[in-house]
Amino acid sequence: MSRSNIQLKTPKGTRDWFGNELLLRERIFATITDVFKRHGGTPLDTPVFELKEILSEKYGEDSRLMYDLEDQGGELCSLRFDLTVPFARWLAMKPKYTYIKRYQIAKVYRRDQPAIARGRLREFHQCDFDIAGVYDPMVPDAEILCVIVDVFEALGLGITIKINHRRILDGLFAVAGVPADKMRSISSAVDKLDKMPWEDVKKEMLEKGLSDETADQIGEYVRRSGNINDMLETLKSNDKLASNKDIRAGVEDMSLLASYLQAFGIDGSVSFDCSLARGLDYYSGLIFEVIMQAPSDAGPEGKSPVAASQVGSIAAGGRYDNLVGMFGKRPVPCVGISFGVDRICTILQPPSEKEGKASRNLEVYVMAIGDKEFDGLLLERMAITRALWKAGIRAEYTAKAKPRPLQQIQAAKDVPLTIILGEEELAAGQVRLKVFRPDVNDKKDMGQLIARENLVAEVEKLLQRKP
Amino acid sequence: MSRSNIQLKTPKGTRDWFGNELLLRERIFATITDVFKRHGGTPLDTPVFELKEILSEKYGEDSRLMYDLEDQGGELCSLRFDLTVPFARWLAMKPKYTYIKRYQIAKVYRRDQPAIARGRLREFHQCDFDIAGVYDPMVPDAEILCVIVDVFEALGLGITIKINHRRILDGLFAVAGVPADKMRSISSAVDKLDKMPWEDVKKEMLEKGLSDETADQIGEYVRRSGNINDMLETLKSNDKLASNKDIRAGVEDMSLLASYLQAFGIDGSVSFDCSLARGLDYYSGLIFEVIMQAPSDAGPEGKSPVAASQVGSIAAGGRYDNLVGMFGKRPVPCVGISFGVDRICTILQPPSEKEGKASRNLEVYVMAIGDKEFDGLLLERMAITRALWKAGIRAEYTAKAKPRPLQQIQAAKDVPLTIILGEEELAAGQVRLKVFRPDVNDKKDMGQLIARENLVAEVEKLLQRKP
Repeated sequence: MSRSNIQLKTPKGTRDWFGNELLLRERIFATITDVFKRHGGTPLDTPVFELKEILSEKYGEDSRLMYDLEDQGGELCSLRFDLTVPFARWLAMKPKYTYIKRYQIAKVYRRDQPAIARGRLREFHQCDFDIAGVYDPMVPDAEILCVIVDVFEALGLGITIKINHRRILDGLFAVAGVPADKMRSISSAVDKLDKMPWEDVKKEMLEKGLSDETADQIGEYVRRSGNINDMLETLKSNDKLASNKDIRAGVEDMSLLASYLQAFGIDGSVSFDCSLARGLDYYSGLIFEVIMQAPSDAGPEGKSPVAASQVGSIAAGGRYDNLVGMFGKRPVPCVGISFGVDRICTILQPPSEKEGKASRNLEVYVMAIGDKEFDGLLLERMAITRALWKAGIRAEYTAKAKPRPLQQIQAAKDVPLTIILGEEELAAGQVRLKVFRPDVNDKKDMGQLIARENLVAEVEKLLQRKP
Repeated sequence: MSRSNIQLKTPKGTRDWFGNELLLRERIFATITDVFKRHGGTPLDTPVFELKEILSEKYGEDSRLMYDLEDQGGELCSLRFDLTVPFARWLAMKPKYTYIKRYQIAKVYRRDQPAIARGRLREFHQCDFDIAGVYDPMVPDAEILCVIVDVFEALGLGITIKINHRRILDGLFAVAGVPADKMRSISSAVDKLDKMPWEDVKKEMLEKGLSDETADQIGEYVRRSGNINDMLETLKSNDKLASNKDIRAGVEDMSLLASYLQAFGIDGSVSFDCSLARGLDYYSGLIFEVIMQAPSDAGPEGKSPVAASQVGSIAAGGRYDNLVGMFGKRPVPCVGISFGVDRICTILQPPSEKEGKASRNLEVYVMAIGDKEFDGLLLERMAITRALWKAGIRAEYTAKAKPRPLQQIQAAKDVPLTIILGEEELAAGQVRLKVFRPDVNDKKDMGQLIARENLVAEVEKLLQRKP
């Protein structure tokens, strides 16, 4: 049964999470969940794999990155690629839910080229909030942007939300003369403008078969970004653009959105960026992407290419009105946002911890001190620690029958309270309670003598006095 | 891109979780995590799949239930079968962690025959706490049993912990005359004693090649259960048993354990049950299983076959001293417990909710009421709701520009506070704040007029007054 030549690693593009790093991630989850609940969200959890046919034809050329399960007899399944398609599948199965705000926090899987240092993994968390149902135009879209602002305010991170509209983008391409069958591929070239200079993007477009003139015209349009109302004025004042049906519809949506963002008081966090395209096939209206950036740092153009390219987007989403209908029942328009928690975790940086020494965040250490002959008082240490555990207090003792004093003192280091048991004190119904003071060298301080029966109450009192 | 003949379901043996059911599960996780932290636990998260060779040869004949990923070029991987082997893999990769209490809550995967009504699924949660490292005998084992008691006390569920020792079981089989190569298979027959009458178990043993006499002798031994000290007396007083080396070692462990459980004050929750065998190959010492049962209901035998067979075990674990060493580096003795959260969730029963109406747990509903001509005050509703969201309050409004009064009143039903906006009041800088009273038919109550600038403070005051 024993083998010694096994390669000890996690699969390519995956990693373990441990200790402080994981505790930080949990705190981020809790913060985000709290915002989702403020906005009336209901949680959903779906299986990690779905029937393969449910996921297929939803992600365009990215579908090749899907993990498939082996055919072991039975259904063909794949690991979920995002949380949006499983939500759409759930909606299609639950016709009674016509209006719903749902949230889901879970891992998703993409067989992409990993770049672990930059936080780009094959297994990573998404944290999604979506609003499904027929509402008045742009009202749920505006709330999603408000959820984004609320989340990053709660996390204490400055951000800019770049927004665009698929119909405006499609209209710009049409006006510039892009043939219908090249729309998606030119769109994906334009999407790289936040990572590449314009010259390289233009080169890619020419290689994809555009004329120099068309490419230049696209460049003129999509390199615009800034305040929504200014951008809308620009689009409306250009007769060629204003005469395009898609652009007019998009401009109408964006004008409504601008008034709603102002009512929420969050218009300052939003920048209208015509180069934003988003890869996934299913988006049909407003699209958005969040980049790390204190709004005060942003110039009038709302751009800071360095910050954006280093961390990449930390949240993204959009409107997808046709996805649920693809499952063949009723259509349900939806809009939603997905937060990239692993990247946010990288930015917030957990407190470091020494390898081999896990942070336990103990509140009390229970030790016994005596001469060489004494029996270690293990049963007494257990009984007292159990009383603390029962009271909800984080406590520990050395798991040895006769531990050495130094070993116990070392283990109690940095723990706010230490309880010290001695045979004589116990015989008198007493224990010692010592408060850790980082600024005082107090190795000889044996703490205050208190009655054993008051111990738990005394500890509770001391812990509540902590800031 | 559209297909209408897709089968809308989750894969076999999996299901979605939604709303109250999921909120209950999250509360259970939070309660259990709190107990784990009390005991000094550090969290670990591992990938959902592992290299296939890491998981193989760890689960005996259950290995055939493993989900494999398709070979898409690169490494061969399988979905994790439990959280114990990934923890052992992590320990083997991290030689600096010689002493660690780690916890992990995550889904595991087994291609078993599902029984969804009984909560037996192919994708299910485990919630594990393990203590790794060389300590004095049975000290960590006793703490694991204390973690179990603390968890179920925190959840408000009465339980009995059935314990046994692999060496005692092996010794009993040896004394009864079971050949070494039949030990595991006879052990799995004995393990069914909580679900089958003795006659059927005996029949299975005879079919597996035991003599009538050997089978009867096993039956005499393994049908014993009860108080640990009584059971130890029985084992010690039988010369044939007491002369077996394995039994003597097991009895010594169990005697130590008995004294520790007494120090913790939890010996009343534990029953020594010689029929408990546990299927997994890697257990090497103490083994245990938790069944739902108020200790007061249990007779002196500590058994209630009905309760046990209906829900099955809701937590289980044991000592596995050789698993980490199988990865070819250093051996690390471990003991741990795994809680079956999905079953616990079934027992605790979430508050029911009507299909199509998700519980949102809102605190405030913001509505606007006016005559037919009025504009719905959407921007005002948005501005006020955003102020509530910023203050951390769960609030909502109807996402329509001009919602009908009835629609809003319906949506505000059961929400503790309603804010009512009217054009005249707003012009005077005022809004109405109405407190929902389930016992009063107060459709005409329009609430109290308060100054708009005091609104958030007033709402916060009212919400904190709630029990």
